[in-house]
Amino acid sequence: MTKDVKLANDRFLRACRREPVDYTPVWLMRQAGRYMAEYMAIRSKYSFLEMCKNPEVAAEVTLQPVHKLGVDAAILFADILLPLEGMGISLEFAKNEGPVIHNPIRSEADVRALRPIEPAEDVPYVLEAVQLVQRELEGRIPLIGFSGAPFTLASYMIEGGGSREYINCKRMMWQAPQVWHALMDKIAGVVVSYLTAQVQAGAQAVQVFDSWVGTLSPADYKEYVLPHSKKVMDGLKHLGVPVIHFANNASTLLELVKEAGGDVIGLDWRINLDDAWQRLGYDVAVQGNLDPMALMAPPAVIEQKVQDILARAANRPGHIFNLGHGIHKETPVEHAIALVEVVHKYSRR
Amino acid sequence: MTKDVKLANDRFLRACRREPVDYTPVWLMRQAGRYMAEYMAIRSKYSFLEMCKNPEVAAEVTLQPVHKLGVDAAILFADILLPLEGMGISLEFAKNEGPVIHNPIRSEADVRALRPIEPAEDVPYVLEAVQLVQRELEGRIPLIGFSGAPFTLASYMIEGGGSREYINCKRMMWQAPQVWHALMDKIAGVVVSYLTAQVQAGAQAVQVFDSWVGTLSPADYKEYVLPHSKKVMDGLKHLGVPVIHFANNASTLLELVKEAGGDVIGLDWRINLDDAWQRLGYDVAVQGNLDPMALMAPPAVIEQKVQDILARAANRPGHIFNLGHGIHKETPVEHAIALVEVVHKYSRR
Repeated sequence: MTKDVKLANDRFLRACRREPVDYTPVWLMRQAGRYMAEYMAIRSKYSFLEMCKNPEVAAEVTLQPVHKLGVDAAILFADILLPLEGMGISLEFAKNEGPVIHNPIRSEADVRALRPIEPAEDVPYVLEAVQLVQRELEGRIPLIGFSGAPFTLASYMIEGGGSREYINCKRMMWQAPQVWHALMDKIAGVVVSYLTAQVQAGAQAVQVFDSWVGTLSPADYKEYVLPHSKKVMDGLKHLGVPVIHFANNASTLLELVKEAGGDVIGLDWRINLDDAWQRLGYDVAVQGNLDPMALMAPPAVIEQKVQDILARAANRPGHIFNLGHGIHKETPVEHAIALVEVVHKYSRR
Repeated sequence: MTKDVKLANDRFLRACRREPVDYTPVWLMRQAGRYMAEYMAIRSKYSFLEMCKNPEVAAEVTLQPVHKLGVDAAILFADILLPLEGMGISLEFAKNEGPVIHNPIRSEADVRALRPIEPAEDVPYVLEAVQLVQRELEGRIPLIGFSGAPFTLASYMIEGGGSREYINCKRMMWQAPQVWHALMDKIAGVVVSYLTAQVQAGAQAVQVFDSWVGTLSPADYKEYVLPHSKKVMDGLKHLGVPVIHFANNASTLLELVKEAGGDVIGLDWRINLDDAWQRLGYDVAVQGNLDPMALMAPPAVIEQKVQDILARAANRPGHIFNLGHGIHKETPVEHAIALVEVVHKYSRR
């Protein structure tokens, strides 16, 4: 474990704990990604899954935005579906089509056949990548590990890939709730093992991504998701690292997301940060919340939007600046660099 | 105009005006659609655009759910993109791919070339369908006309079809705001002409669909959309018919949507109806808000969800029951029939 290493820049971890900082820390979701020429140069040599499973490559692309953007935290390059393979899921990334799962989970028997994972056996490359990144970072900034949340992982497993309507997912929820809960319980256990192993390998914080849970009504979230996300959050507490809980497109679920747990609640761009924080209460930190598409705008517009978000955060301890969703591949890299600069500049206390 | 015809069932119009009703009126967005065998029988003989442009066919499918489901209002069968052709947009519905616009709007010159529409010339088939439906309905229930809202129409025109990220749309907003506003102003004018003509042909209410505006932050909605949606709402006031303003996935925009206008505010399923109505204030009616996917659930689950929504509406005058988005093509038709029945049954005063 390297989490007790003294960090040169610990603003991100301090903000997670709602401690005062000299300026607002910033990192970008999917910051190791296709908008960066250095990433594309490597991507041209490997498939996406090959990149994920090669620790040297994963470590290298994890570090690219650290060098290029000057962010206050690194986030491991990986895919949220990686731990599913160990459960028995057959995963493929079809060219330009996103993930395809060849054996979608639809029945009680399917759920029963899913195995728990043993991270050291099933995702050794992820843990090696964490260690390699930490060796390179030499304590400059912290490294964030991450996982998908149970609903988001279940949605891929049931639909067999990405979805717009989650029809099979919702069918299972409502038609076979005991099968649904058994599946979610298994996934929650896997998420806890997976994130625990990342922290033990050296990650100093973790983020749980519930990217697609915004398709649910508050009542359905409460009944079908909250207990399982809470199991994850409760299972991570003893690790002693900050946990960021990000539910995308979930403005009406925020109170329930907080109830499930997390030291930091991630916010997308659809809600004003001050309204969200007031609803959540100030006993939790928040992360966000610039529209990722705003990075397509001219620098003056970006600057104005950053200032608006910082004004809403009002220098209250516990704000981590981020996009409201992953950075887009068409983002001009110089706009991402400028974003980090203006966040630092305008938030200096 | 037939709007002064005495209706046998005027519960829908009474609820729009927040007058007491003996039970809660219900209709379903996209109720004339592919989940119904009678619709598919006709669809097998015509392309989608042919159906829209043939008044007899459009009228027939408009009436199918009236007979089959017992809803309290009919809504015209049409597509929101139809009025764009008169503006100079070249529209096609590619097989299984949704709408394709061959000349997307990207520049000031593109916007300048767009024409206002003359509904009697450009969409005569829509107005004829309204008249045919009214002849068949014989005053049993009211007919709702509809249009896309300026943002949603602009998003198709700029992106050239459906979108997930609205990258070109947002680029125009932020990089060329004067071009954006000129486009939105032109579209708003078209929407007013189009809906005015539908009302003059006999529609007793209209709904404005802002299906994709939920991709915007509150600040961007306020600056780039609200003035144009308000122009539409203001332009419809003198018609004296109720206007439903439905912004999908827009829980954080509701107050601004109300500010733009509308007698009834549509709600998707992501928000609790009571929370939404309290935020909006009780000087406006609300419509919604069952998850359309809930119709995949067993009848007992549907019934429980209906009772929850009705309990949240609390018999307050001004609630129209609906789905939170269009009915899905895989919906069992008997579930749609059961929905209408249970809404009527459990809401009886």
